[in-house]
Amino acid sequence: MKLFYSPTSPYVRKVIVLAMETGLDAKIERIPAVTSPVEQHPDLARANPLAKVPALVIDSGEVLFDSRVICEYLDSQHQGPKFFPAAGPARWTALRQQALGDGLLDAALLVRYEGFLRPEDKRWPAWSEGQMKKITGALAEIERLAPSFGDRVDIGTVGIACALGYLDFRFADMNWRQQHPQAAAWAARVFERPSLKATVPAA
Amino acid sequence: MKLFYSPTSPYVRKVIVLAMETGLDAKIERIPAVTSPVEQHPDLARANPLAKVPALVIDSGEVLFDSRVICEYLDSQHQGPKFFPAAGPARWTALRQQALGDGLLDAALLVRYEGFLRPEDKRWPAWSEGQMKKITGALAEIERLAPSFGDRVDIGTVGIACALGYLDFRFADMNWRQQHPQAAAWAARVFERPSLKATVPAA
Repeated sequence: MKLFYSPTSPYVRKVIVLAMETGLDAKIERIPAVTSPVEQHPDLARANPLAKVPALVIDSGEVLFDSRVICEYLDSQHQGPKFFPAAGPARWTALRQQALGDGLLDAALLVRYEGFLRPEDKRWPAWSEGQMKKITGALAEIERLAPSFGDRVDIGTVGIACALGYLDFRFADMNWRQQHPQAAAWAARVFERPSLKATVPAA
Repeated sequence: MKLFYSPTSPYVRKVIVLAMETGLDAKIERIPAVTSPVEQHPDLARANPLAKVPALVIDSGEVLFDSRVICEYLDSQHQGPKFFPAAGPARWTALRQQALGDGLLDAALLVRYEGFLRPEDKRWPAWSEGQMKKITGALAEIERLAPSFGDRVDIGTVGIACALGYLDFRFADMNWRQQHPQAAAWAARVFERPSLKATVPAA
């Protein structure tokens, strides 16, 4: 399999964490693809019409995207404990938590594009403020949920870990741990996992 | 169940189409929630920390989001033909197609916010052009896939139908049918389904 990836994409991180946790990482060749919403990477755009990472070329030649689809596909390709629980309450909880992490990230990326990609005179503070509200809403929900996480490692908690890791990477000034002690305590434990240690984005 | 919805949201449309197709619609009370990225709907924000529609309050009181999670949950709540195929090639094809439709929509919504929500002097043409490239890339891929759709109705084809329906609603000037005859021929058939007829957004 071949994975179009960027080392700073939090959605890619989710995929690589899952690949490492399930022993699939060695079967995945990584193809670097630096891309942005205003400048497509040509090879990536040929593989994924949305021109986004991650995109996974599977052995049939088909290209899977986005990160949720890739993660669920990879989870079907190993025999260990599953990251996507079978249908039932545990599945809805995990998928909801993945959506919470992805939603936080969608908002964080939009803030980032607004503040760093867009020319300064074209920035609209109300836009960034609206997205920041989504981030703080998601953080409050993660704080509420954190005591229930225990040491559960599935697509829900991996998704949330990658979301929090992105705040550490790009929103360090927020200092999210200060007002979210339960989430911080959980993050301290989960960030000790080799898969998360190996995928910390470099500044 | 209670569904926070907006009648013009294409992600909501996906959920309602699936609910109608599976006979679950009568069990879902609809709660209107007009929201925007810069102005949250308070009740919706209390239910879904990301303040987005659709959000589904299930009988346990838990609130599910986003549209993908809600659709898969609803699909577990009926005994008819499934919209999410079981694990295997048919599932990855359907999930990939759902992601293609959602990705087209994510780009289309960003173009819409840029051109209608953002103050005129803060608009950045390169941003809209970058998102439009994703839309045209997705359309080319839908055109390539359309001959394989036949009369298959699952989460992949429903997702793509809702994406094309949104182009009809908000991007009529694109006249996407002109350069995508296979997709147009397929859309003409699928849009005849009562679930899609009942959910055409009103201008």
